[in-house]
Amino acid sequence: MKLPVTAVPMLSLGAARSSQIERKNIMQSQGRPATANANSNAAPTADATVALGSVSPALERYTHDVVLGDLWKRPQLSARDRSIVTLAVLIARNQTTELPFYLDFALEHGVTPGEVSEIVAHLAFYSGWANATAAVKVTQAVFARRGITAAQLPPASVTLLPLDEAAEAQRESTVQQNFGAVSPGVVQFTRDALFNDLWLRPGLAPRDRSVVTVSALVASGQVAQLTYHLNRAMDNGLTRSQASEIMTQLAFYTGWPNVFTALPVVKDVLDKRPG
Amino acid sequence: MKLPVTAVPMLSLGAARSSQIERKNIMQSQGRPATANANSNAAPTADATVALGSVSPALERYTHDVVLGDLWKRPQLSARDRSIVTLAVLIARNQTTELPFYLDFALEHGVTPGEVSEIVAHLAFYSGWANATAAVKVTQAVFARRGITAAQLPPASVTLLPLDEAAEAQRESTVQQNFGAVSPGVVQFTRDALFNDLWLRPGLAPRDRSVVTVSALVASGQVAQLTYHLNRAMDNGLTRSQASEIMTQLAFYTGWPNVFTALPVVKDVLDKRPG
Amino acid sequence: MKLPVTAVPMLSLGAARSSQIERKNIMQSQGRPATANANSNAAPTADATVALGSVSPALERYTHDVVLGDLWKRPQLSARDRSIVTLAVLIARNQTTELPFYLDFALEHGVTPGEVSEIVAHLAFYSGWANATAAVKVTQAVFARRGITAAQLPPASVTLLPLDEAAEAQRESTVQQNFGAVSPGVVQFTRDALFNDLWLRPGLAPRDRSVVTVSALVASGQVAQLTYHLNRAMDNGLTRSQASEIMTQLAFYTGWPNVFTALPVVKDVLDKRPG
Repeated sequence: MKLPVTAVPMLSLGAARSSQIERKNIMQSQGRPATANANSNAAPTADATVALGSVSPALERYTHDVVLGDLWKRPQLSARDRSIVTLAVLIARNQTTELPFYLDFALEHGVTPGEVSEIVAHLAFYSGWANATAAVKVTQAVFARRGITAAQLPPASVTLLPLDEAAEAQRESTVQQNFGAVSPGVVQFTRDALFNDLWLRPGLAPRDRSVVTVSALVASGQVAQLTYHLNRAMDNGLTRSQASEIMTQLAFYTGWPNVFTALPVVKDVLDKRPG
Repeated sequence: MKLPVTAVPMLSLGAARSSQIERKNIMQSQGRPATANANSNAAPTADATVALGSVSPALERYTHDVVLGDLWKRPQLSARDRSIVTLAVLIARNQTTELPFYLDFALEHGVTPGEVSEIVAHLAFYSGWANATAAVKVTQAVFARRGITAAQLPPASVTLLPLDEAAEAQRESTVQQNFGAVSPGVVQFTRDALFNDLWLRPGLAPRDRSVVTVSALVASGQVAQLTYHLNRAMDNGLTRSQASEIMTQLAFYTGWPNVFTALPVVKDVLDKRPG
Repeated sequence: MKLPVTAVPMLSLGAARSSQIERKNIMQSQGRPATANANSNAAPTADATVALGSVSPALERYTHDVVLGDLWKRPQLSARDRSIVTLAVLIARNQTTELPFYLDFALEHGVTPGEVSEIVAHLAFYSGWANATAAVKVTQAVFARRGITAAQLPPASVTLLPLDEAAEAQRESTVQQNFGAVSPGVVQFTRDALFNDLWLRPGLAPRDRSVVTVSALVASGQVAQLTYHLNRAMDNGLTRSQASEIMTQLAFYTGWPNVFTALPVVKDVLDKRPG
């Protein structure tokens, strides 16, 4: 089904997207049919009816034909991974307007409520505390509407994944040597709160934490940290093809310039890795 | 007329700005007198009465004397061009609070509704999809208030401007060589959606697309892409004097640090161009 | 007192923070008891009850134990300085959602209304005009609620601090030489509006203006300007220990990547300074 390109309310695109996008990676984590969830997307709110075509018919066409009709259907990356990338971008850039739509979409395409919970906490550290608390406010409403309760979320304290002590010793040594004298506070919290705690929480796979981190780095233009984190992502299981396609997804959601600034670093990382 | 520097509601500055700013470039695209439009700026809304002086008398003085009384009146750049620069900054940084005021101002100073429409679509690609959709929401309300309908906007599909095939072949070849193996998806969409489609839409002149792009780059700190796009802007007709003054406008609307980071690149581009 | 980690409304954390954070630097600038002010933090508004734990129990724990229970209590930097850093980050990144809470917190921990007023004006120049006007809107409501009137704020025109003419002549000469031909407008406003006006307003100490500037630079990823401004901060009285700890505060509020990108510059500045 091809949608008419005029006067389609933005949020009711949910239905269109559900029907248009590759479905083979869909996991119905909530046990509800996609149609019901898609309908809940379209639930009217005070500002839910934004018609792209009333301002930019071109943008509406690009959204339908290029973003939804092509990008999200490309087989190089699952709708679940694309959702994680997109949520990370929106939270890292504090773009709360679009967040409810993509939260619903993520929850309908294999991202569990617990994973959303961990993504938000992860981005507190990787994009700033106020981005995460702003995201909590939006996510809280989405969770409430979908009947998601705290019982479905990873508790505050959990049994952590085992630490790769050799890799962590090397990381800590490098950071300590570089910045131990400059900012001992940063070095301490990096070790204690990030690498010995946050990254070891099992509610979000290390590979997915890396996808979130890499997406946030590109979204905020922090390419200086990309070499370390893209390598870590691939050590955590991200494939070359997925790394490449994450850049395609990021081009649309962070804008072309951020991705073109990142691509030389990505190229360098891929060139230097064996295999 | 000099305004009192206390207790002037921000949005009613519209009247002050209309009377203070250089008018010789004004084109009344809506066929309504400026006064009426300026009054519509001051239409009360839920949060329309922000008095700069109630928080920062200094900021109010700088706004009246430096930004409105000096910057916007400088002859090096028309009010129309300054409006395009400013809209691009606000959309690229997702600053929706100020957007309605500057949309009204732009529409009263020679930017047509169709051009606004194309600016929004252009920035979907150059600053991220969610920035554009957030801008649509704000612009939709401004268009509705001003009685602007879809009939006044460029349709989704249009007859494109002719492609400069030699320049495009060179661009494509460079990008393909650099990143074809790293991210074929990015390379493909760059060619098909951006340079063979978006940039060729006639609703916004290539020179103005370049102004939007350069402004978005500086606004988001992406100076690595500035050499290419500033050269392209000047190939598209931007003069040295205008390029220089765009940086002055950007200093105020993106903040001094972004412009000081961009100036060495601007200098390098200007030094290397003939003439 | 340790708070339960579930179902604590975000804004009522105010009480928790007031009791948990180091108090020795507290100055009650409003002459009201902290308890009353903390209660006013918790005043219900339309969206005041955001329970971190309803979305991310982990984030709630990190907020209580790491950010409030540890970071804000560290003796290397006063709660007043941490408040200035945090306000600068929020305004520079247009994060208005969290701004009311931190404005209240700042006003209860030694930042005067007049200093808030000057911080907002300062950031108009250092993070863009629309960031400052968006901050005015939020601050106006906080000032009104607390009964702060324009009489408590520095007037638009004041007797300026004496100019260090030798240092200014050197700065102007360098900037003129680098960019006088590229953007004479930027050079002129930098001299007239910034260094011969804004920086000389006595309502915010030069050392504090530098803290605001450095924080805004890291918040927006503009490390190219950090060498100049961190040196200026230390010339203005910032100690090495404070500079170091500002980076720790910034790690949490701008995100780790921004700080890791800044640390090599900080290290270089500290290494090259005598003493």
